[in-house]
Amino acid sequence: MNLLKTQLKGDRVLAGKEAVAELYKTGYFGRPKDDGLELSLVEAAYLQSRGKLDIELEGKLLGFRAFFEQASLRQQNFELKYIVYKDLKERGYYVQPSAADFRVYPRGSHPGKSAAKIFVHVLSERQPLSVKLLQESVASAENVHKQFILAVVDEESDLTFYEIKSASPKGEMPEPFPAVKADATFLEDRVIAWDAEASGALYSRGFYGKMLDPERLQLSLVESLYLFSRGVIVVRDRKGKIFSFDEFVEKASEIEGSFLRKYSAYKALRDSGHVVKTGFKFGTHFRVYRKVESIEKIPHSEYLVNVIPEDYEFRLPVMSGAVRLANSVRKRMLFAVEKGEEVEYLDIGRVKM
Amino acid sequence: MNLLKTQLKGDRVLAGKEAVAELYKTGYFGRPKDDGLELSLVEAAYLQSRGKLDIELEGKLLGFRAFFEQASLRQQNFELKYIVYKDLKERGYYVQPSAADFRVYPRGSHPGKSAAKIFVHVLSERQPLSVKLLQESVASAENVHKQFILAVVDEESDLTFYEIKSASPKGEMPEPFPAVKADATFLEDRVIAWDAEASGALYSRGFYGKMLDPERLQLSLVESLYLFSRGVIVVRDRKGKIFSFDEFVEKASEIEGSFLRKYSAYKALRDSGHVVKTGFKFGTHFRVYRKVESIEKIPHSEYLVNVIPEDYEFRLPVMSGAVRLANSVRKRMLFAVEKGEEVEYLDIGRVKM
Repeated sequence: MNLLKTQLKGDRVLAGKEAVAELYKTGYFGRPKDDGLELSLVEAAYLQSRGKLDIELEGKLLGFRAFFEQASLRQQNFELKYIVYKDLKERGYYVQPSAADFRVYPRGSHPGKSAAKIFVHVLSERQPLSVKLLQESVASAENVHKQFILAVVDEESDLTFYEIKSASPKGEMPEPFPAVKADATFLEDRVIAWDAEASGALYSRGFYGKMLDPERLQLSLVESLYLFSRGVIVVRDRKGKIFSFDEFVEKASEIEGSFLRKYSAYKALRDSGHVVKTGFKFGTHFRVYRKVESIEKIPHSEYLVNVIPEDYEFRLPVMSGAVRLANSVRKRMLFAVEKGEEVEYLDIGRVKM
Repeated sequence: MNLLKTQLKGDRVLAGKEAVAELYKTGYFGRPKDDGLELSLVEAAYLQSRGKLDIELEGKLLGFRAFFEQASLRQQNFELKYIVYKDLKERGYYVQPSAADFRVYPRGSHPGKSAAKIFVHVLSERQPLSVKLLQESVASAENVHKQFILAVVDEESDLTFYEIKSASPKGEMPEPFPAVKADATFLEDRVIAWDAEASGALYSRGFYGKMLDPERLQLSLVESLYLFSRGVIVVRDRKGKIFSFDEFVEKASEIEGSFLRKYSAYKALRDSGHVVKTGFKFGTHFRVYRKVESIEKIPHSEYLVNVIPEDYEFRLPVMSGAVRLANSVRKRMLFAVEKGEEVEYLDIGRVKM
């Protein structure tokens, strides 16, 4: 069998015009250019491993190893891209190199028949992922109605695919809190409301806090500030002095450095009709319910939520663990990104390709 | 009913000699002292909430709220301790205050009948936990054959109990690697072994790496250094130059800051007969198998392992998430603490009391 002769030039592999018929028209490999075909390095490596190409560099034939080493020197992330490209091809997808990093066509379709459906971005588990860039990429994909997929190559070269999309969770709670008035004390790092009737209403109708005993309610700091800002509770220090809003924020921020960021997400979630409880047992800031009908029958929570600043950088193993845990308890993992006074949500879930 | 009259003095509540009979001899509350009984603040608050005591401060009777606020001002972590003490009492345990923080008697037993069985240490989820202090506490407990339990109070005052013990995991793999020789290239952040036969042996008998294709094996950096240090592979850069051990470590450490720490745990686990693979999907450094018989039938892995420096401070929500994830996939969560050239293990699991 005569293999197609190609030349490695820079970060491209160039083939003659016979390749247009053999590779482009039948398999949608490469891009026709100047009477020939231009292949990316990953396409060339893949075709070489399938015995379709001879690749020459300065007149010398390169074996797979020599070409792979050359390609790795010439293109950043080459191995990662190769691992992902090969995986997608072997799953039967048509894949084209693109700015970030591949365009993938729907199953059964190919270039020319329909548009690509998925943008795939490739990362090593060791590379940090800026949430700002991620949000931009997701928005770009969603603007043109594409799915955004992150393909993470771990240190052992195993692949995990994550679908990332923007989200606007809406809850179904008719009112964010019962109309009561209660007196409460800011203790060391939590707040106790003392009135039995108000405590009972906040707990069993508003789903706030946890009863210390049948009469008194323990509230978290974010719960307390939310109820305080709504005029539901008055908060005093242990000597009886009433806190102002700013004094409360200052004290809470001493206890928990990122208190205000966490509060902004708590507030946004409560305001949009959710019941929001701590996610401590899952290692996240919150677990979130769209609707709770009765304190005796707390349903399954829909979301786990981590609150992050807008300049956050994901460490992918940490993100992976959070998503895996959420999925293992049948919840969605949401990241609430603090944007000034607003909060934007990213929904990250593992997907099979 | 006549309540026992007591006095709040400093961080103790003092009762007369009738309390010795009523509280100490029947319920093992407090410590007899100077012809009377001395109660800790949590004991007193608990007894007060059960209607057993009147507590006075400077001649004035304190209600539950007033005493609680006073106690919170007088003792650090008072609320946390109260929450844990009350929970344990309501579960039917006999509990005594101790240095760190409670001694708990076995079910059905009490002080004087048998020794305490459990040391319970109380923390807020917001308090950092020094691994050094933790190791000391666990060792102290284990030296006197006690169980060490960490009671974590989350921001909503819910309680989670963790049992923490030292561990010495032992695997059952007869030989750590097959006796082959292979040539490999250090690419961008991973290594490829090129020889088909050696690659196959390393993969299917040593359970190293992941095949790139039927001929070539991708190895992680820790796997590569382990095999390299055993003389199994020779590692070259992409231009063919052979790495020395130090050069490999230097390059790998540039790619991954804590490479050597991770390697020391990888080496310890492999040397003790385990098969060690990446834990990326679980957000941990490693997943660990005690025994793998065949690459076609990879069993359930027993452990997830995170490697930490000896001056590490646990953030409890992060620890909680890791333990929860491990338990949800039926594995033990181990923390491998780097101690010079050695590695010590802490096994942390959630328990019900």
